[in-house]
Amino acid sequence: MTNHAATPATDARGSQFVAEAARQVMRRCDQLADCTDRPGEVCRLFCSPAMQSAHTLVRSWIEATGMSCRLDAAGNLIGRLDPPKAGDHRAVQNEQAAALIIGSHLDTVVNGGKYDGALGVLLGLALAEIAVKTDTALPFPLVVIGFCEEEGVRYQEPYFGSRALVGDIPDAWLRRPDAEGVPLADALRTFRGDPDRLAECVLRPEDVLALVEPHIEQGPTLEDRSLPLGVVTGAVGHSRASLEFVGRAGHAGTVPMQSRRDALCAAAQFIVELEQLAAGVAGLVATVGRVEVLPNVANVIPGEVRLRLDLRHAEDRDRLAAFRKAIERAGEIARQRGLEFNLLWEQQQESVQFDAACSGRLEQAIVAAGLTPGRLSSGAGHDAVILARHFPTAMLFLRCAGGISHHPDEAVSEADVATALEVLWRFVTDLAASTAPDGVQVARTKI
Amino acid sequence: MTNHAATPATDARGSQFVAEAARQVMRRCDQLADCTDRPGEVCRLFCSPAMQSAHTLVRSWIEATGMSCRLDAAGNLIGRLDPPKAGDHRAVQNEQAAALIIGSHLDTVVNGGKYDGALGVLLGLALAEIAVKTDTALPFPLVVIGFCEEEGVRYQEPYFGSRALVGDIPDAWLRRPDAEGVPLADALRTFRGDPDRLAECVLRPEDVLALVEPHIEQGPTLEDRSLPLGVVTGAVGHSRASLEFVGRAGHAGTVPMQSRRDALCAAAQFIVELEQLAAGVAGLVATVGRVEVLPNVANVIPGEVRLRLDLRHAEDRDRLAAFRKAIERAGEIARQRGLEFNLLWEQQQESVQFDAACSGRLEQAIVAAGLTPGRLSSGAGHDAVILARHFPTAMLFLRCAGGISHHPDEAVSEADVATALEVLWRFVTDLAASTAPDGVQVARTKI
Repeated sequence: MTNHAATPATDARGSQFVAEAARQVMRRCDQLADCTDRPGEVCRLFCSPAMQSAHTLVRSWIEATGMSCRLDAAGNLIGRLDPPKAGDHRAVQNEQAAALIIGSHLDTVVNGGKYDGALGVLLGLALAEIAVKTDTALPFPLVVIGFCEEEGVRYQEPYFGSRALVGDIPDAWLRRPDAEGVPLADALRTFRGDPDRLAECVLRPEDVLALVEPHIEQGPTLEDRSLPLGVVTGAVGHSRASLEFVGRAGHAGTVPMQSRRDALCAAAQFIVELEQLAAGVAGLVATVGRVEVLPNVANVIPGEVRLRLDLRHAEDRDRLAAFRKAIERAGEIARQRGLEFNLLWEQQQESVQFDAACSGRLEQAIVAAGLTPGRLSSGAGHDAVILARHFPTAMLFLRCAGGISHHPDEAVSEADVATALEVLWRFVTDLAASTAPDGVQVARTKI
Repeated sequence: MTNHAATPATDARGSQFVAEAARQVMRRCDQLADCTDRPGEVCRLFCSPAMQSAHTLVRSWIEATGMSCRLDAAGNLIGRLDPPKAGDHRAVQNEQAAALIIGSHLDTVVNGGKYDGALGVLLGLALAEIAVKTDTALPFPLVVIGFCEEEGVRYQEPYFGSRALVGDIPDAWLRRPDAEGVPLADALRTFRGDPDRLAECVLRPEDVLALVEPHIEQGPTLEDRSLPLGVVTGAVGHSRASLEFVGRAGHAGTVPMQSRRDALCAAAQFIVELEQLAAGVAGLVATVGRVEVLPNVANVIPGEVRLRLDLRHAEDRDRLAAFRKAIERAGEIARQRGLEFNLLWEQQQESVQFDAACSGRLEQAIVAAGLTPGRLSSGAGHDAVILARHFPTAMLFLRCAGGISHHPDEAVSEADVATALEVLWRFVTDLAASTAPDGVQVARTKI
């Protein structure tokens, strides 16, 4: 058998590649930030005009690399660098090999940051570009995915994109309306997705060799430990719920305090107690991020308040206990005040462990790059958490300034991005070497 | 001099008038409730399509009575029953006499009731109809006003209509945008008002003989005392303010509790403490009716919260002391939590005493009708409170079921409406008798 390995790049040439690629990733994060649904803020919502602009931009970069690019039925943007075809002098034997998938999400929260999500997509793209530029023949397809909806802002349901890949989209979601009454299915059609063909998005286990999501940490741990990168061991479990307090609206000037059934006062008491509850359980975070007050008029006693509760902990048992306690207290507060309490909806997501082999390979790449391999668990949900239940999945966290995320101040350094690229490229080539068929030597291109 | 007094109606005929008029007032309240900006709710906002429908309807009733009807530059609907002209066999001498104004507002809160405001307008109209039907020549113009904006829902500023009548509309209000960004001036123009000619709305003291606003109580006092009607001695003072807590948005899963600067937790603590503060001061009512959370997304720690504070007390000193304490506590809560606090806006409205002579005449009419004259102060603001600083003004409260207002359950009985009509008609004819020129005897029509 012939050796089809690409010419290894020299060290010097490689460093230059990485530095240039990192600079380009940073520039592209800035450019993507300009694709926004709210001028002056970073805001890209599911199937929105800004997301359309973002896709146009990312697609142009993907295609310029020589990769194929397609929108799947769920609205995910997917670039693919196939192994060389038979006849190509670099051909490898396993053309149909399972893919290495690298990616993250392209949507953001309202008034979010430039790096949450986008960075992972652009790192995947940069790796494909390095493969092309260094003429490295990978023995597997390298797939870069920009997931369409991780934050769940528009339809109040996160992970639409990654759930489509594992065939886990309830039909009811498609009928769900956004704030303007547009059903999800209609939004998806306008975006040229196809709600009737979601089944075609589903990946089989044999399609996926490994899946890596690079992402900013969104917390302070790496910065506190002075580490640029960390391997994510798993993700905390997550309780989400929608709570409703129903009191009675009334005139703010005429109803004496003792006759009131003020839904906002009940909700406020709950929020204060929830904060105390969370402060008392190590590792627990509890948040009320969304509040709807009805009728929300200055001179009317609030008649109804709906809250979104978000509760996370690495230990499922601790999380569930805290969740039950919170719901119990909400009910008691309502009863004591003569109000009605309803738990409108809840969702429990168990904690997840990422793939040991895949994470171990990431860790080796970090060590090989001369760095300390930090390990940490993720307090945030990620597309990788959804996918980890089905495919060998790992996550690489990049240090972010002050642990700030979901905020315009979100920041990551170009140097850390370069380090991440170096480590990820090492991961890619190590994986290539380990999966290439017998006798085919894949270059461990030093860059 | 000739006696131009109208033929007095008989008692029997009169009772029938009142009963029929009360029934019609109730029917018209139902009809007006169907003019709504939100199907299934009562909601008529300033210059909205529903307000346009309401004006069309009320104008048709006014004009059917033979009154003149006009829209003033501020969007108030004004019907006028002039004294008989010279040459008319019922002519009285003082054609240019100051007017008796009876009215209230036609706008409502979101998801409000059928009677708040509308009832007072329709009672005024019913009195004009009784005057016409009983052929009673009043020596003064009887003016019925439907004020355009008392609640202040659309532009967050109440009393636009009555403030226009006293020349107290700040220019800045006209540029203020509603939730959709439509400036007030544009909304008014679309409604065929004229923001450039607001000066023409202003009434001079010599234009107004007396002003009466009939209104549902919106509180439980009359019902508790088993009284159908009450004369309002004055209105409580009113502090209003817009408060802002600025913390830092962050990811709900990754920022540990102790690192958070959650604006909603601060706001919730303030709301709970405000409730406690109000409960500790007799007669004080304090409300946070409106809350805006930014970004208001389930998985983002709230970065900013704006609240509307509403605080009322009959004693100005007590109210101001409580207001200062509330603002002080808001600042302390913010400081303790490492947040920024801003008092964005405040408005202090002093308590008001209604006109003693005018209120006394209302009270006499109640006694003459064989009822106990209940006296109470108003916890709500009203157009009459604005006008009382400029014209001899009185308010008549009607008992409402359970003290409920600003709510779909708002209710008033037809019997109480009939009683109010009887009392108000007596007030009108007494006033006519006392103001008719020497020698002209105005019928104290018994109805």
